[in-house]
Amino acid sequence: MTSETYDPQTCSLRGFHMHVSRFLDGSDTPRAYLERCLAEIDRREGEVRAFATLNIEGARAAADASSARYAAGAPLSEIDGMPFGIKDLFETEDMPTECGSPIFKGNHTGRDCALIAGLREAGAVILGKTVTTEFAFYNPGPTRNPFDTERTPGGSSSGSGAAVGAGFVPVAIGSQVVGSLIRPSSYNANYGFKPSFGAINREGAYSNLSQTALGTHAATLTDAWMAARVAAKFCGGDPGHVGLTGAVALPEAVRPARLARFESAGWDKTPPEVRAAFDALMDRLAATGVPTVGREESARLEGFEQLMAPALEVTNDICGYEFLWPLRYYHRRDPGSISQNIATRLADWEKITADQYAVLLDKRDAMRAAHAALSDDFPVLVTLSAPGPAPRGHDWTGDPVFAVNSSILGAPAISLPLLEADGMPLGIQLIGSPKKDRELFACARWILDTLGLKP
Amino acid sequence: MTSETYDPQTCSLRGFHMHVSRFLDGSDTPRAYLERCLAEIDRREGEVRAFATLNIEGARAAADASSARYAAGAPLSEIDGMPFGIKDLFETEDMPTECGSPIFKGNHTGRDCALIAGLREAGAVILGKTVTTEFAFYNPGPTRNPFDTERTPGGSSSGSGAAVGAGFVPVAIGSQVVGSLIRPSSYNANYGFKPSFGAINREGAYSNLSQTALGTHAATLTDAWMAARVAAKFCGGDPGHVGLTGAVALPEAVRPARLARFESAGWDKTPPEVRAAFDALMDRLAATGVPTVGREESARLEGFEQLMAPALEVTNDICGYEFLWPLRYYHRRDPGSISQNIATRLADWEKITADQYAVLLDKRDAMRAAHAALSDDFPVLVTLSAPGPAPRGHDWTGDPVFAVNSSILGAPAISLPLLEADGMPLGIQLIGSPKKDRELFACARWILDTLGLKP
Repeated sequence: MTSETYDPQTCSLRGFHMHVSRFLDGSDTPRAYLERCLAEIDRREGEVRAFATLNIEGARAAADASSARYAAGAPLSEIDGMPFGIKDLFETEDMPTECGSPIFKGNHTGRDCALIAGLREAGAVILGKTVTTEFAFYNPGPTRNPFDTERTPGGSSSGSGAAVGAGFVPVAIGSQVVGSLIRPSSYNANYGFKPSFGAINREGAYSNLSQTALGTHAATLTDAWMAARVAAKFCGGDPGHVGLTGAVALPEAVRPARLARFESAGWDKTPPEVRAAFDALMDRLAATGVPTVGREESARLEGFEQLMAPALEVTNDICGYEFLWPLRYYHRRDPGSISQNIATRLADWEKITADQYAVLLDKRDAMRAAHAALSDDFPVLVTLSAPGPAPRGHDWTGDPVFAVNSSILGAPAISLPLLEADGMPLGIQLIGSPKKDRELFACARWILDTLGLKP
Repeated sequence: MTSETYDPQTCSLRGFHMHVSRFLDGSDTPRAYLERCLAEIDRREGEVRAFATLNIEGARAAADASSARYAAGAPLSEIDGMPFGIKDLFETEDMPTECGSPIFKGNHTGRDCALIAGLREAGAVILGKTVTTEFAFYNPGPTRNPFDTERTPGGSSSGSGAAVGAGFVPVAIGSQVVGSLIRPSSYNANYGFKPSFGAINREGAYSNLSQTALGTHAATLTDAWMAARVAAKFCGGDPGHVGLTGAVALPEAVRPARLARFESAGWDKTPPEVRAAFDALMDRLAATGVPTVGREESARLEGFEQLMAPALEVTNDICGYEFLWPLRYYHRRDPGSISQNIATRLADWEKITADQYAVLLDKRDAMRAAHAALSDDFPVLVTLSAPGPAPRGHDWTGDPVFAVNSSILGAPAISLPLLEADGMPLGIQLIGSPKKDRELFACARWILDTLGLKP
């Protein structure tokens, strides 16, 4: 098995947004851009296996239409012509939606979900469906990490993370209910954006749990923001949520008044060399004069850390209870249609009572209230995206212990591919306040500026 | 066209719950009960047209299995053997889910939604899918009012309301986002229960707007409660909501400390003879010594009435904006696939901006806050379920102006078939506080007791 060496510089050249001016002046076209993506796919998809389905001819037709619009000086949006990979939980009229499960093999719903309908209205090129773990839970699909194919790409948005990491597409859509977007973003050197709960309409997606949020895996911070913002512009937020609003352009960098160093339960699982890499980065940020405050300096942060310690256990039980339908139903109908991995967990989830679920929701509410109380003083929490690089092997998609925090808080999170460990990419994670997604991007941009990186 | 004369006494004999003791002692069986339902369907479905699909043989098999369980003294739940009609928005593995739209003609999703999976686990007999208006909005289906086939059954749960009114089934599942359960309940002499938002899991239903709630149309108050409560016991609430909890038995009657007379914007649309019938009923309740307080006696109620005046307009805009997907997508793909009725409204909904939607949500929040502030002193609002009996003709499903109030408040509501106008049934509506569904049933039962009616 061959693997590409991880090189942050190469990754950052793979973005879409910096090509738009050349589409407009005619020196490049979305069709040519797509063909460069297809060349990468042709070269490496055999070993990476990021896609469940590809619609190459459909994508070429959409890219040609986009090229014609740029030639006429009339693109439909800032992401007109952008090739997308779409996690295979989202309904697409031209491709099956298989949810990583044999139950959904060849499942054609005949329609686009809200997100895809919106992306197509915006001129986007829907290139393929990316591999998800079974029902976006823990059982892995065939995808390999593009930076070391002996390692997992992470999950559940396995194919979306890997497709962006491999340079197959500049942006892929993922979703997160536990740690399904931030974790694979970290493992695949993506700029990953898990928005506030409700920020992007998830109607027509096979994921409707009370923490599920759609988001973007991207080659650049700008692409991560713009793809999400334009998507929300065309499809809205979840019912009952206004969703992402404001200007489409990446927010300008804003130097934060203060940064909170957030360890969470993940820190205990983090090996010393990774801790050291994180601390070194925090030191670089502190060297700009921005105070970085942690649990040792602030009793309030210490209290918050303690309250958040069971975030993963609480989330797993909340999600397990909420996913009794359809999992229990599928399992009862045909036990062999569900992986042993899920069947084993199902036996535990079935024991959760409605009263216990109420207690779990109360715990989540308490975490959210504590986060809200902190947010004026500490609008951004800085932490790792994962306890280390992608683990070796393919039976396990890695530990969501860091990524879960923004899920349970309903808060926006961004993973920035700024660290390296064991020759592999590793992300740092920024967690903002719910509905303050723009402000979080402004901080992320400031961090890139500080480090001399382009957004 | 023939129609059955409206006779409240006949309707109240059609319940399921009072037969259970006879199932247990062997003097009756769920199969025999089902056959009595089928005889009514055979007799009148040709003119009522409540069903989009019937699965008679599947229902007979389920009823036989239920009969065997009672014979063994081991029913699966309090609703084991209960025949259900299911609004045709809910996925069923054995019947298509057509949503009242040609787009979904013959749409087999191959699975049961959460509710149906739960009902089957509880032993229920899923007899058929009931007609819904197109996508549960305003365009009528073929159903006729069983008490006068020249009149509408109401909508959008047209078939569910009519099926219960005609005595085809003791309970049918409906849903409400504007006035789709309470209004047809009123027109068809149902006991209608629109629970608190989130009370019954709607996963796998084609209705996920921010006010959508599933509920029951029933022949008796007991059936309305027990069917909903057992459903929630087996399928839970919406993700993020605990749903209906507590004992399955109908709550005991509780005499309210006070009743609030709530006019809402509907009162102005109510003709004098209907107002008089409502006032006479309120007088009977007041004669028990329970104070009935209205806007004229209470400045707080007056303020609430004023705040709630635009409830229907606000709701229509919220729902229209939220339903841009999939309606705009379907319309763009094939304009002829959408009724002119929806296409006309769509043109207006497309003009609603995200900023305007935010204002609408704020207005809704203000109404909910005002309702919460009232609820200690006025835990139950009493009003009409509709401004009059079912209108004549079939082009319009009637005015949701009264029914919308509980939708926008996220509050539980019960329609009781206690009034008559123009020889047709008409409901009074009780609106409770969110998550106080049990308490609302206790008040409803007290009202029936007071009037000498069985629950």
